[in-house]
Amino acid sequence: MNVVAIGGGTGLSTLLRGLKKHVGASSAPSIGSLSAIVTVTDEGGSSGILRKELGMLPPGDIRNCIIALAQEEKLLSQLFAYRFESGAVQGHSFGNLALAALTQITGGFDKAILAVSEVLRVNGSIFPSTLADVRVRATCADGTELVGELAISGDPTLPLRPRPEHARITRLHVDPAEAEPIPQAIEAIRAADLILIGPGSVYTSILPNLLIRGIADELHASRAMRVYICNVMTQPGETDGLSAEEHLGTILDHAGPVVDTMIVNDSRPSERTLEAYAAQHQFPVVCDPHAVEALGVRPFFGDIISEGNYLRHDSDALAETVFRLCAGR
Amino acid sequence: MNVVAIGGGTGLSTLLRGLKKHVGASSAPSIGSLSAIVTVTDEGGSSGILRKELGMLPPGDIRNCIIALAQEEKLLSQLFAYRFESGAVQGHSFGNLALAALTQITGGFDKAILAVSEVLRVNGSIFPSTLADVRVRATCADGTELVGELAISGDPTLPLRPRPEHARITRLHVDPAEAEPIPQAIEAIRAADLILIGPGSVYTSILPNLLIRGIADELHASRAMRVYICNVMTQPGETDGLSAEEHLGTILDHAGPVVDTMIVNDSRPSERTLEAYAAQHQFPVVCDPHAVEALGVRPFFGDIISEGNYLRHDSDALAETVFRLCAGR
Repeated sequence: MNVVAIGGGTGLSTLLRGLKKHVGASSAPSIGSLSAIVTVTDEGGSSGILRKELGMLPPGDIRNCIIALAQEEKLLSQLFAYRFESGAVQGHSFGNLALAALTQITGGFDKAILAVSEVLRVNGSIFPSTLADVRVRATCADGTELVGELAISGDPTLPLRPRPEHARITRLHVDPAEAEPIPQAIEAIRAADLILIGPGSVYTSILPNLLIRGIADELHASRAMRVYICNVMTQPGETDGLSAEEHLGTILDHAGPVVDTMIVNDSRPSERTLEAYAAQHQFPVVCDPHAVEALGVRPFFGDIISEGNYLRHDSDALAETVFRLCAGR
Repeated sequence: MNVVAIGGGTGLSTLLRGLKKHVGASSAPSIGSLSAIVTVTDEGGSSGILRKELGMLPPGDIRNCIIALAQEEKLLSQLFAYRFESGAVQGHSFGNLALAALTQITGGFDKAILAVSEVLRVNGSIFPSTLADVRVRATCADGTELVGELAISGDPTLPLRPRPEHARITRLHVDPAEAEPIPQAIEAIRAADLILIGPGSVYTSILPNLLIRGIADELHASRAMRVYICNVMTQPGETDGLSAEEHLGTILDHAGPVVDTMIVNDSRPSERTLEAYAAQHQFPVVCDPHAVEALGVRPFFGDIISEGNYLRHDSDALAETVFRLCAGR
């Protein structure tokens, strides 16, 4: 089984961490090849600074995927994840700097990813969704435009707030619209038996990939099972008040028919956790299975979270749910 | 034959590059083990900034030795040597940042060197002369003191000038005087059959090692052949007007009887090269063999330079001269 995972942020790397153990596994469930297609529209933090100062694509999401799929789990992965705590390099992740230097040395961001992947013995292939210098831009209900990832997802150093109803995001764009995917990503989609979209932020992790025109076209044509893994909680400013079917509807509206099945969490977090999230304007994503089916998509339920001090998608539970879905097909 | 090379700067890494090919060679001349003991009193450039901002030892000289001894000659060595050209990281060498991050992760500069040495498959062992936060301090003929490596070697961004006669350096100190060497460096000296000191700057590359008390003591006690490789040209501000025997005398004055043989260049650079050097206040180091012998040291002559746009010690010629010396012993 060839698997392609599409997304960004912590959602994608969490999923990859769960799938990694099954790549080339001797017993079922086994994954033949695993590819990740990763958004490159990030503009915050170390990635944003390197993007601005060195004119490279933002390396952060790619870095997290590399670490997630590294088989060299020890010192080199630790080094790659290390963040400097003082001096001029403060806040920079070492892995980001490695990708920056290798982009210069090899002459390409994709070649840099390949080089790092070899050193860290990455169990899979990691592709940026495009090598073009792309930015996201959102149109709101009232016609205002939000330019750039930070304007859309909100300043991460401040508490996130819901967007007022009149300023709700209605449409996402990627500039330039004609940005091309890289051929290896297209090949991976063509060879895929299973395509996983998400979990992750709809407007800043998922759609920035699906709006790369060549990628959506390939997803339409694919005969793979195409699965959207819906977020568990709403995200202030991006998906306030949206149900699972509305998350799905947003994706289909933007990218066309790219989903056959949607995985939805059916485990209810504790009241205490929900209260803590509610204080941060985050609420569980509810799902009406009939509304999902009305969109031509099959809902598939699973317990995909782990609950500590905060909620997280659980790597192993995610992988297990994916394999349960495949087995039942 | 176990070899220990002691020094810093480009001189040491040039020597190591020549010796590397003979480590574990199947045919003579073959080196059983190769260790480098490297000065850590640098305060300029990327090293100086990291020293100040991150409170670590200066990594630059160590980095150059790692690159010189790396068997992984390709991408990783290129990466390790890469210097950022813009942004907040401008001027920083990637290798220095790697040593900085690994010092934090592993908890020690020596452990960081070991980790990098493994990744780059370094053909030898590289030791800082001490793990203490040491600084050099020079006393001049007129009693003034120069504190720190930059004050002694001069601002590298300005043309170097001779020091006036009354301000000639007469004595070097390392603060704190009680800085200890690391045990592995002492073990390497004890196991050595051949100890090479230099080539390199007397006051900023060679003596900062020999003034680490435990190192000089071991050199006194050693039964290895102890060879000082004298610089080819004088160095403005450090060794203006000094003959080879005066270079040697300076070392013996500071470190006691640590030299059996001195290698001296006997190839004369072209007049054109000498003129260019003279314009920068640099002149060939002349040698009176009888004066060397009067210091209890045997002079040994060889052609150890390569002449391009400027003079350099030649890696292969240096190694060949060293082996010729050993063969004739």
